[in-house]
Amino acid sequence: MQIVMDAEALNVFLAREFPQVAGSYRVERVDPQSVTARLTVDEANLRPGGTVSGPSMFALADLVVYCAILSRIGPVALAVTTNASIDFMRKPEAGRDLIAECRLLKLGRVLAVAEAMIFSEGGAEPVARCSMTYSIPPKR
Amino acid sequence: MQIVMDAEALNVFLAREFPQVAGSYRVERVDPQSVTARLTVDEANLRPGGTVSGPSMFALADLVVYCAILSRIGPVALAVTTNASIDFMRKPEAGRDLIAECRLLKLGRVLAVAEAMIFSEGGAEPVARCSMTYSIPPKR
Amino acid sequence: MQIVMDAEALNVFLAREFPQVAGSYRVERVDPQSVTARLTVDEANLRPGGTVSGPSMFALADLVVYCAILSRIGPVALAVTTNASIDFMRKPEAGRDLIAECRLLKLGRVLAVAEAMIFSEGGAEPVARCSMTYSIPPKR
Amino acid sequence: MQIVMDAEALNVFLAREFPQVAGSYRVERVDPQSVTARLTVDEANLRPGGTVSGPSMFALADLVVYCAILSRIGPVALAVTTNASIDFMRKPEAGRDLIAECRLLKLGRVLAVAEAMIFSEGGAEPVARCSMTYSIPPKR
Repeated sequence: MQIVMDAEALNVFLAREFPQVAGSYRVERVDPQSVTARLTVDEANLRPGGTVSGPSMFALADLVVYCAILSRIGPVALAVTTNASIDFMRKPEAGRDLIAECRLLKLGRVLAVAEAMIFSEGGAEPVARCSMTYSIPPKR
Repeated sequence: MQIVMDAEALNVFLAREFPQVAGSYRVERVDPQSVTARLTVDEANLRPGGTVSGPSMFALADLVVYCAILSRIGPVALAVTTNASIDFMRKPEAGRDLIAECRLLKLGRVLAVAEAMIFSEGGAEPVARCSMTYSIPPKR
Repeated sequence: MQIVMDAEALNVFLAREFPQVAGSYRVERVDPQSVTARLTVDEANLRPGGTVSGPSMFALADLVVYCAILSRIGPVALAVTTNASIDFMRKPEAGRDLIAECRLLKLGRVLAVAEAMIFSEGGAEPVARCSMTYSIPPKR
Repeated sequence: MQIVMDAEALNVFLAREFPQVAGSYRVERVDPQSVTARLTVDEANLRPGGTVSGPSMFALADLVVYCAILSRIGPVALAVTTNASIDFMRKPEAGRDLIAECRLLKLGRVLAVAEAMIFSEGGAEPVARCSMTYSIPPKR
């Protein structure tokens, strides 16, 4: 399937529609098999012991899946998450950004399903995995 | 099972251990069947259309489950979420706080399982439901 | 919302449409808040140690959610599960049937969400919990 | 990590410990990156319209994850599923076996996490995906 928004177009879209998050989350790469995004980790994302908070990882997974869908269907702001399942498997490394890689598994007329794997930058093993379903609003 | 931390004790603990979130999230009630927490919704939690963001709802669910566990085992800061599954079912009502009610389903030696139902304050139908597993560190 | 199929109507429907399972699984009660179903446990459902297999519990959860939806919308055989999340929390008691109680959380035009709690008959604490999303085919 | 049970050893183990399922489910391949299993589809697995039932797919995912764990830790019959999340994405093709490919994401001392992708044999796109957590009993 064709890519209709690249990384730059997605970042411009995020900055305009989601100014609260666009400072910390950024799409790094869009290719036919996967979309990659980065969370620049700062104080607000940390928890005791220097680990990244679960909600920050959830937000990263949510964003990369959303962008993977938009990369194929264009800037449909109203696609919404209906289900997410996330496994937190390892403690992220202190002082590293998080990188999420998303693979779109299904892009239907009504529902899209994707999974995202989250890594500490440079790490070989995932710190978390997430699968998500998005509901896609009908075209007008 | 006995309650060892009440709402006030939990809020004091959150303010000390999680100062980043303690301003927005607050435990409202602890009773033998359930624990209730509130997210005071402000600009940072909102998305286009006035809805509350998914990650903010996830954070509320995570907090209420964490507090439900601590209410029974005491201030074990290092209990960590290992799995979460969340269904977003309805759009939260604009301008309302979110209320989460948590029920502990299992409190084992190693794992705890709970579910949380999230409502717009005053609303009859849940906007989201979440089930979570926490890993409880061994006692020293 | 109105109940359009009661327990008897659902069991007749299951016997006709799903003869492979109708011998073991049975709807026990349909009321406005919940639907209850039973798995009559026999050899085929057991695993080493006398426990009921995970897939048999999954099948029971799937059936009770399906019947909860049909109890409100009528005999739509083609409603399909799109997502399920299940927590296995305790070992079922040997020699007891399993009872599942289902609560419908959302019945939308396209998606329905429900949760089921599974107990060993007579047991106070759930052996498993499950949340499921069903996709409802458009009306012709 | 080392492989301690290969496909043949796993099939022998299944035949001895799980005679009810060993006729239909079979490990096909064990390699360092993944474990593959097959469900030979017959009447008992089918639903109206010729599709494979959800519980049969769940059982296949459960089996391939279980075998992926045993392939690394040896014949520990008492490892048990604690959580599963499954997305059913496409209707399996009629008259085809199902093939599940499992990747172990974490093998900890207490918990293992894996994901399985299920395909109709010869199909390019997954019909279902599943993530599972297993609890591993302490060594005696």
